[in-house]
Amino acid sequence: MGKRIHNFNPGPAALPLPVLEEIQSELLDFKGTGMSILEISHRSKQFEEVLNTAIERTKRLLGIKEGYHVVFVQGGATLQFAMVPLNLALPNKSVSYIDTGTWSTKAIKEAKLLGKEVKVVASSQDKEYTYIPEVFEVDPDTSYLHITSNNTIRGTQWKEFPKVEDVPLVSDMSSDFLSRPFDVKPFGLIYAGAQKNLGPAGCAVVLIREDMLQRSPKDLPTLLRYPVYTENNSLYNTPPCFVIYTIGLVLKWLEETIGGLEKMAKINEDKARIIYEVIDRTGFYKGTAQKDSRSLMNVTFRLQTEELEKKFLEEAQKNGLGGLKGHRSVGGCRASLYNAVGLDSVKALASFMEEFERKFG
Amino acid sequence: MGKRIHNFNPGPAALPLPVLEEIQSELLDFKGTGMSILEISHRSKQFEEVLNTAIERTKRLLGIKEGYHVVFVQGGATLQFAMVPLNLALPNKSVSYIDTGTWSTKAIKEAKLLGKEVKVVASSQDKEYTYIPEVFEVDPDTSYLHITSNNTIRGTQWKEFPKVEDVPLVSDMSSDFLSRPFDVKPFGLIYAGAQKNLGPAGCAVVLIREDMLQRSPKDLPTLLRYPVYTENNSLYNTPPCFVIYTIGLVLKWLEETIGGLEKMAKINEDKARIIYEVIDRTGFYKGTAQKDSRSLMNVTFRLQTEELEKKFLEEAQKNGLGGLKGHRSVGGCRASLYNAVGLDSVKALASFMEEFERKFG
Repeated sequence: MGKRIHNFNPGPAALPLPVLEEIQSELLDFKGTGMSILEISHRSKQFEEVLNTAIERTKRLLGIKEGYHVVFVQGGATLQFAMVPLNLALPNKSVSYIDTGTWSTKAIKEAKLLGKEVKVVASSQDKEYTYIPEVFEVDPDTSYLHITSNNTIRGTQWKEFPKVEDVPLVSDMSSDFLSRPFDVKPFGLIYAGAQKNLGPAGCAVVLIREDMLQRSPKDLPTLLRYPVYTENNSLYNTPPCFVIYTIGLVLKWLEETIGGLEKMAKINEDKARIIYEVIDRTGFYKGTAQKDSRSLMNVTFRLQTEELEKKFLEEAQKNGLGGLKGHRSVGGCRASLYNAVGLDSVKALASFMEEFERKFG
Repeated sequence: MGKRIHNFNPGPAALPLPVLEEIQSELLDFKGTGMSILEISHRSKQFEEVLNTAIERTKRLLGIKEGYHVVFVQGGATLQFAMVPLNLALPNKSVSYIDTGTWSTKAIKEAKLLGKEVKVVASSQDKEYTYIPEVFEVDPDTSYLHITSNNTIRGTQWKEFPKVEDVPLVSDMSSDFLSRPFDVKPFGLIYAGAQKNLGPAGCAVVLIREDMLQRSPKDLPTLLRYPVYTENNSLYNTPPCFVIYTIGLVLKWLEETIGGLEKMAKINEDKARIIYEVIDRTGFYKGTAQKDSRSLMNVTFRLQTEELEKKFLEEAQKNGLGGLKGHRSVGGCRASLYNAVGLDSVKALASFMEEFERKFG
């Protein structure tokens, strides 16, 4: 095998090396079945164990004892932008969103497309989505309040979730799910595309509170109804078996090797602090998000000129640091520091940034 | 690694061993990127090459020069049951289906659920779906005629596709796509869940004719509109990268190792004939499908008693022959002989069946 790089991709993103090695080692013969995990039936006892263990680990990591279902849905977060309003909008009632950019904006657009009365109760559009809005009012009669917990493109993240009584929170947590502990109780539904903190692309993990299920209309396309997943334990049709299997290995790593979400959060804080400290030391690098809204998952920054940014990305790549280009919609640089990005990679990046500053600052 | 079994699973199903070995060998470092295929961006030039090569191979295998798009959609064939009527039903016109059991029946049910005027123009329900209907009339004004090319559960398969002028054919080819050459021109749309002849679970390959795209209403959920896939080359959102990558390797194997669909069809005919000959030799095994409707992909058969069937399945498993149990809805036995099931596996099954008959016949 060639040398592995330090992978700061925004998603699909780095996976823990021990997870990749385990997949590799059993790829031709899964647990003595004489078949690859890619070849076994989704209705076999071996796969059901994979599925159920992944569900149990997710609940255990979040400290959930009851009242929630964990299901796996194809279509990523983008299909959730549609499924959430289709399933959770109450008849003749509004749906509420906070717009923190890009993904929130897409979720809002989809709810409108599907004919819902959308109330955008707060937005940080006035300052190019560089912060998380703090003050807003929510109609107590609205169906739900939707937030995006972390914006991968603008590098912002909710530190504390909004407190709204009686209105269920719904969150797209694609880019920070299981990166830190939090209280699930205010959430009616949480969804997360797998390809950032959880596994490969091709699946969203959805956490749905029991009382949300009765809202789902019966005339939706079958695979767009949450009860179809909860009632069939995600096996109404063939699920994305390999993605679920890999998610299961990542969850095992998170639980057994890292030691749970408190420990993961501490590591993630350390990782982000190391990079933000380099950014804040002089004016050479400029963080794009307001300091109190900075994401621990996606550190976004600019250099003085686009030329210098290009140079930075080229030199980084030469030094084995990949995936640092900012999203094409905003430019600049971005280091994605998801769970699987190790402290060694972060330290290598920090050293490189300091060295680059010495040479070009 | 342990001993690999002869895998007759109905789906997810056997994959070519060289494909599994290639995945395994480059799992930690894809083409010198220093990243796993599971970790690389779907917008990287490496992944775009994977995607485009898979599309080109599909077209080349089918002899398609122009007029069709190949796209990859999450949700398997089941989501296609909904997407087909939602996208292709013409305003105030019916949609037509031929019911050859299970999957056809589900497709019909979904179209009705979504409010379409469904005409079932032929059905083999009268004889427990043991045959493919031959005579039927189709309203020339209907939106499309939907068929299921192969029924995995009843073991039936269309030998020649129905000829209906001016009405586009739509086919679920999940279980026999790319198992034989055919003329695509009468088809407005073809879909195939990957997990039988193409790759792992988690993706459907959809072939859509250019003129079908304009039918798609604009107020559908974004990911349920075919034009969203064709206009964005399946990259509107993050696609199931690993599944597409594996499909690409299977297509390469089919094109370069097997030598194309004519050769594949010949091998598949040989494989099925070997098993059907064992079945027809005496009355010990009974094929469940009518002879002229027999599937080359799924050979379904019964033994005299359920006890003997149980014994057969147990003994087969002991002899390294797996996945031979019939679908839970019909019982009995089934050997799925998809493209990746080798002649060696088929011969091993035939020998075992003869041996079993000698012992228990």
